[in-house]
Amino acid sequence: MIRTLIPIADGCEEIETVVVADTLRRAGWDVVLAGLRGIAPVTASRKVKIIPDARWEELDLLSFDLLVLPGGSGGTKALCEHDGVQETIRIFDIEEKRIGAICAAPLALHKAGVLKGRAFTCYPGVEKEMRRSDRSGEPVVIDRNIVTSQGPGTAFVFALKLIELFDGADAAEKVRNGLIY
Amino acid sequence: MIRTLIPIADGCEEIETVVVADTLRRAGWDVVLAGLRGIAPVTASRKVKIIPDARWEELDLLSFDLLVLPGGSGGTKALCEHDGVQETIRIFDIEEKRIGAICAAPLALHKAGVLKGRAFTCYPGVEKEMRRSDRSGEPVVIDRNIVTSQGPGTAFVFALKLIELFDGADAAEKVRNGLIY
Repeated sequence: MIRTLIPIADGCEEIETVVVADTLRRAGWDVVLAGLRGIAPVTASRKVKIIPDARWEELDLLSFDLLVLPGGSGGTKALCEHDGVQETIRIFDIEEKRIGAICAAPLALHKAGVLKGRAFTCYPGVEKEMRRSDRSGEPVVIDRNIVTSQGPGTAFVFALKLIELFDGADAAEKVRNGLIY
Repeated sequence: MIRTLIPIADGCEEIETVVVADTLRRAGWDVVLAGLRGIAPVTASRKVKIIPDARWEELDLLSFDLLVLPGGSGGTKALCEHDGVQETIRIFDIEEKRIGAICAAPLALHKAGVLKGRAFTCYPGVEKEMRRSDRSGEPVVIDRNIVTSQGPGTAFVFALKLIELFDGADAAEKVRNGLIY
């Protein structure tokens, strides 16, 4: 069973958070929404209130196979400023574990220094904050262990691609059919 | 500002709940996630925990312009069994206010008696519980004031169609662009 770690904080984009968590759980994966400020409810970017599954601090971070970063400008700011998240991004990258980031969240990968020399995509305009002009226009971009995507409307394609990468195309297709996507 | 009422209970489908709430809020609408068991956290179908915005009982139900019912089998069962929801469906229909239902939730419309003689869609197979064989294969079906849709993967199209019906195609297109959908 693939263990997926999704750090969430106030201002995370709720569609990106929930589409990824739900879709990966439909594949039978263990998905943990990890609160960066304990298990206090997170108020997402469009005011949906989500209770994290666990506190970030209590988790054995290296027991996870996949780290996924949802976007939303407030949530991404928290991912950029949280030392533990930044360190975990670097460790996952060194260990060549897969990391996903969608919408504004590739900025947190840039901040951690792991996006250098990599192909990527993000929410249009966010690349300027990285002083880069080579954002791909594809919904999902894979460069070795790093998978990036554009925004809420590409969250299904992003999550299904993650399932395909770990479990193969048939597993992803089965989940896609169940979603009526 | 369009006021939208979304009743939620344990077992509601979290993608359908959150994609609709977030997308309609992006259109500037007032969206209330109304807890059928107070403001206790709702554990959705794939275990995402969502805190309702308000208790169903405390709301002025007739102040809303639109009622949207998310699917998920547990959530739909609650919508079918809750007298207040069933009565509100009937009143909205009599007053020709718009009602949306996605996935399994058209079953709650069937239970309330408002789907009789109407074209509809739902999650494939759910029509059997209504003893009907005339489910449409379209992602979204509109019959007068009732708008139905198929499942998590059609939630964006469903929400954008609701925006189009109230605010016009340009408003829906603007939200669609912002979502990168």
